Amino acid sequence: MRTYKLTIAYDGSRYRGWQRQPDTDLTIQGMLERTLQELRGYFIEVNGSGRTDGGVHAEAQTASIQLPGKVEEAAFVREWNQKLPEDIRIKDAALVKNGFHARYSAKGKRYEYTIDQREKADVFTRKYAYHFPEPLCLEAMEKAAALLIGKHDFAAFTDRNEEQSTVRTIYDIRMEYRTDGAREKKLYILYDGNGFMYHMVRILTGTLLEVGTGKRTLGETAVLLETGARWQAGFLAPACGLKLKEVYYDSVS
Amino acid sequence: MRTYKLTIAYDGSRYRGWQRQPDTDLTIQGMLERTLQELRGYFIEVNGSGRTDGGVHAEAQTASIQLPGKVEEAAFVREWNQKLPEDIRIKDAALVKNGFHARYSAKGKRYEYTIDQREKADVFTRKYAYHFPEPLCLEAMEKAAALLIGKHDFAAFTDRNEEQSTVRTIYDIRMEYRTDGAREKKLYILYDGNGFMYHMVRILTGTLLEVGTGKRTLGETAVLLETGARWQAGFLAPACGLKLKEVYYDSVS
Repeated sequence: MRTYKLTIAYDGSRYRGWQRQPDTDLTIQGMLERTLQELRGYFIEVNGSGRTDGGVHAEAQTASIQLPGKVEEAAFVREWNQKLPEDIRIKDAALVKNGFHARYSAKGKRYEYTIDQREKADVFTRKYAYHFPEPLCLEAMEKAAALLIGKHDFAAFTDRNEEQSTVRTIYDIRMEYRTDGAREKKLYILYDGNGFMYHMVRILTGTLLEVGTGKRTLGETAVLLETGARWQAGFLAPACGLKLKEVYYDSVS
Repeated sequence: MRTYKLTIAYDGSRYRGWQRQPDTDLTIQGMLERTLQELRGYFIEVNGSGRTDGGVHAEAQTASIQLPGKVEEAAFVREWNQKLPEDIRIKDAALVKNGFHARYSAKGKRYEYTIDQREKADVFTRKYAYHFPEPLCLEAMEKAAALLIGKHDFAAFTDRNEEQSTVRTIYDIRMEYRTDGAREKKLYILYDGNGFMYHMVRILTGTLLEVGTGKRTLGETAVLLETGARWQAGFLAPACGLKLKEVYYDSVS
């Protein structure tokens, strides 16, 4: 068997998330597996680096598949893309060492959360940004981010009762306003870490936004890492603003 | 009766254009009129500044309506937006002099055409830009644009047999590459003119793209203004790249 690493972009708007589900065709994994089966004639599991929620986007999700022999990558990608809907694109397929697994081999991830700060909601970016026009104190948010960076127990920042450890390391949280060609005022928050639990980036974002609007103090943010109480953490920022930007690996060749 | 000027943004992706049609609910005008009827209890015509085709977008389409009396504009806009789908937004309603008509009072329009020059199609902008990765000679395109600017007979640049004059004035055609925050390489072509016929901006764009790829000479472009032959003009650039940016009026208050 040969192992291939896939890099995949998707507009998650109309999907119920990454994970294959028995009651709907509208999942990313389900769509990838169904079209791959059409292409190859038999079922091949597509193992993602992790699940993204319904409405969450990806610029470079990764997945691994096993094929019985070598394929010509460019032609394989082209043929597969022809079978996929336009909102899912295979960007790359690369032969990797056997033993590689998109999830277990991953060393870290980068997510980006986009906040549209313009006064009025925009018809063109409503599915790719969270419209939040309230003024934000970036300085306070950056101080709160500094408290969250590092190795901590993030039990307060997940909506699932984790059986395993809730300790994670956030390498960096960066915020930047970008005014692009269309004169759009948007705040981008970049999260780098060794792993993120269910809803974690969205709860981190909700917490930072509450700091930015003065609804939450730095002390109330720091204490979350002690108490681990979800109800004390911020609101769940909407899925549409979230995008998986990159999955990091040591070396995959 | 009181006349109100509306400014409207819409994502045209899922609509069959501006104009109300008997066989589908999915038109912008139809959607506006149906929700306005729900709001006011009787039918009120929504007169647009012009029709946009299926898939074409608008940042600031204008329309006029007549109401029996004054309304509080902000509340009226808010209530109407609550009834509208998220991909159509009333941005503004302003009381104007009686006799104002969004179409007949218009002095000019600005359209923007977006060309995605990146190598691979992008899942996030596929509905808002035309993916055209071929290299373009901007200098040649700008020379061709200079030939088209001014008062000319644009009979070669429409797909409808016009009964009225096909003379129009193009005030300006500007091209700019913008690299926005997301590191996207896109070419924007801005068209200002006193009026544009059916498909005119898209045929102008197709013609300029043929100049930019060397498929068409400047001489072959200039001659179009003489012959008026549609078959000699460029291809019809796709609707998704087109956006109505602004409608100009002398004064509407």
